[in-house]
Amino acid sequence: MDKISFYDNETCDVNYEKFFEIFKNEVIKIEKIVSNGQTSPENFWYEQQQSEFVLILKGNAILEFEEQTMILNEGDAVNIPALTKHRVKQTSQEEPTIWLAVFYK
Amino acid sequence: MDKISFYDNETCDVNYEKFFEIFKNEVIKIEKIVSNGQTSPENFWYEQQQSEFVLILKGNAILEFEEQTMILNEGDAVNIPALTKHRVKQTSQEEPTIWLAVFYK
Repeated sequence: MDKISFYDNETCDVNYEKFFEIFKNEVIKIEKIVSNGQTSPENFWYEQQQSEFVLILKGNAILEFEEQTMILNEGDAVNIPALTKHRVKQTSQEEPTIWLAVFYK
Repeated sequence: MDKISFYDNETCDVNYEKFFEIFKNEVIKIEKIVSNGQTSPENFWYEQQQSEFVLILKGNAILEFEEQTMILNEGDAVNIPALTKHRVKQTSQEEPTIWLAVFYK
């Protein structure tokens, strides 16, 4: 069994948001995401078939839903039901934002 | 939708290990666990029907498997397949150890 480090020294590249698949089977997918100030495109909304649990490990972000805006700091998480419209309004400009995302049915 | 803070001020009680169910459905269960120096009982091995992904958010721990020992610090995770014998050999004596655990089929 291998240890997975979420804090591996990330090359902080403001031009890219990176997605690392940690595990996937028929029911769940676990991902590490590293954002560097990226946001969802203007007027773009995620509206996924799968539910998504996200947790901020480092950095911070602002998520936007149709009826609320949520500031997430280190240690903050939110469980987003399938088909709930959401977008990333902001991620930290100061440091990489490291997310754990768990997609599930 | 509610924000879930994993770093809520935890009353650090060395007499207890605490389990908080964040979410559960037929396929996954997401838990926050706060250990305060607890370990698995001597000669006790977990051997679960479900797979388990664990990630250390704060503190540190040592997991023991039949053929390896694994030191986990902040940001370290391991994906433990179902029916893999494991036990918690140590958790930090200095501070609460906050785990995210995702159990899945």
